[in-house]
Amino acid sequence: MSHHWFDDPIPAPDSTVRVAAGERQAQLTKPPGSLGQIEKLGITLAAMQRTQQPRLDQVWITVFAADHGVTAEGVSAFPQAVTAEMVRNFARGGAAISILAREWGARLDVVNVGTVQPLEELSGVLDARIGPGTANFVHEPAMTVEQLHDALMAGHHAADRAAINGAQLFIGGEMGIGNTTSAAAVACSLLGRPAAQLAGPGTGLDAAGVNRKALAIERALAKQRSNRPLEALQRLGGFEIAAMTGAYLRCGQLGIPVLVDGFISTVAVLAAVRLRPELAAWLFYAHCSAEPGHRRLLEVLEAKPLLDLGMRLGEGSGAAIAIPILRAAAALHAQMATFTEAGVSQA
Amino acid sequence: MSHHWFDDPIPAPDSTVRVAAGERQAQLTKPPGSLGQIEKLGITLAAMQRTQQPRLDQVWITVFAADHGVTAEGVSAFPQAVTAEMVRNFARGGAAISILAREWGARLDVVNVGTVQPLEELSGVLDARIGPGTANFVHEPAMTVEQLHDALMAGHHAADRAAINGAQLFIGGEMGIGNTTSAAAVACSLLGRPAAQLAGPGTGLDAAGVNRKALAIERALAKQRSNRPLEALQRLGGFEIAAMTGAYLRCGQLGIPVLVDGFISTVAVLAAVRLRPELAAWLFYAHCSAEPGHRRLLEVLEAKPLLDLGMRLGEGSGAAIAIPILRAAAALHAQMATFTEAGVSQA
Repeated sequence: MSHHWFDDPIPAPDSTVRVAAGERQAQLTKPPGSLGQIEKLGITLAAMQRTQQPRLDQVWITVFAADHGVTAEGVSAFPQAVTAEMVRNFARGGAAISILAREWGARLDVVNVGTVQPLEELSGVLDARIGPGTANFVHEPAMTVEQLHDALMAGHHAADRAAINGAQLFIGGEMGIGNTTSAAAVACSLLGRPAAQLAGPGTGLDAAGVNRKALAIERALAKQRSNRPLEALQRLGGFEIAAMTGAYLRCGQLGIPVLVDGFISTVAVLAAVRLRPELAAWLFYAHCSAEPGHRRLLEVLEAKPLLDLGMRLGEGSGAAIAIPILRAAAALHAQMATFTEAGVSQA
Repeated sequence: MSHHWFDDPIPAPDSTVRVAAGERQAQLTKPPGSLGQIEKLGITLAAMQRTQQPRLDQVWITVFAADHGVTAEGVSAFPQAVTAEMVRNFARGGAAISILAREWGARLDVVNVGTVQPLEELSGVLDARIGPGTANFVHEPAMTVEQLHDALMAGHHAADRAAINGAQLFIGGEMGIGNTTSAAAVACSLLGRPAAQLAGPGTGLDAAGVNRKALAIERALAKQRSNRPLEALQRLGGFEIAAMTGAYLRCGQLGIPVLVDGFISTVAVLAAVRLRPELAAWLFYAHCSAEPGHRRLLEVLEAKPLLDLGMRLGEGSGAAIAIPILRAAAALHAQMATFTEAGVSQA
């Protein structure tokens, strides 16, 4: 077995800083435990950043876009052209993730890892097309092994760009008509579950559409099922999904905390943590999506998301909405007065 | 019956703008409904502000502080001195709400409506003491009718200050050792529930303490129960709780949206909406507190809070954590491109 970049070590957050962070929380001017999850987030961020003054000023969002051959099976409510159209919308600043990135002062990086057609040059969009969308995985593997490694590497590069720019938090987002079908197929493959458990309406299929989608996934699984993460990604995944897997793995290696978005992002996480369980220590889960399969995936991953607002847009938008919660946790941990400093009596 | 200021009309959010806002949401570049609750928040904010460009740049937080005679019954884990000590901590910027206000650029206004001892002059703290804490409501009414009206008026004044300063959102917070006991007593009185259903650990009572607290409330209810909101506040409430009730009512009259914090704030809301049901249209509920009674109150009010992070600090801190969610909803509603503007195909 050859050694790949993603086999390199993923460090653990600092356990000594974590213990000190827990002690600090108990000294802050509030009843112990009264900030609930916010306290735990502050402690975890301290351990990740190895400081009692964690900061999340620099947030980096990479949205990976790609097309999916499986759209030929009629599995999406929207035409395939929307993938490219939305990349242009990201570039012009009109998409949900564009607005959220601007509101929170986060850096938005868009990478085209495989729209069907090449795109004109677009400001803020990196052209890293691996192919003209994936192949239709109902009939053949979604991508070649080489393409898989290119997609993982596109994620690696995005995480490196984030690190070079001083990112203190990484969000991966995706855009790709058909990608809930691909994500559900990968998850079913890795978890040994039937398609009906993880196929959902995506961008807005009706019940007949969801059924059609589940049947397409079952046909694909019959031929291509694998419980190996890289094999499942290669046979059933998408370029943007594999790129997210690569980005998350590289973030773990670099010690950059990750805020995970919704259903598709969580499937990329599932593949990543199956490959490298140590990555789990670097992950925050932003929200529980309205896409029904997401709750099941979160259970498998023992993930406790911060929000449950019925969102199901993708693009990293659910994670972006949750950025201020992490920022609040960092600020409270770093800046609140202790009982001694403030001269406040204890219980 | 004499006419009071809180009998003056509370306008409704604009239903025409609301309809147009719903139509706008359906045209934004995302699958319809895919932003879940965020879409509804955007629509509601548009209707409240009568514009498709809602903004929440100016957020006003008033924390009302007061002491409670019922602490004599041993109902709090912390000594009564902490109320005043925490007011000083607010003034010096070391409390959770101080940090959150700073992080989000919100204005923090602190009003002393009744600490046991007068406080020295403190920067940013308004002295509006109504009395040296309330009386112990196990034995006598917590306050006189005149004191109740003074407390309501302290809230009225706070909402007016918010309006004069251009507030687009109001948060009421509270500090007062013993105030979960008072809040639970008011709620039990208004809802006709036994104390055991709404008395909880507060700042950190053990099981024996919670039991002692419930018994104190039952003794008070036996003598002073009333299902009239003003009477319940006067007999069992606190100056800071009544002040929040007044502030919320005045915000409704002024058309300023309110973001409701946790258990104690919600009891103040309960009294306010029992008095003036039209107020409900101006309220957002920020979070479900870890204080067990809060979930029951939210059910009674048919409130769907934005967050459930196990917080139970008070001070308005849970509401403050949720400010960016409303800001995101406003920004997305106002700024996202429509399908036509962006040239994106529809389903």
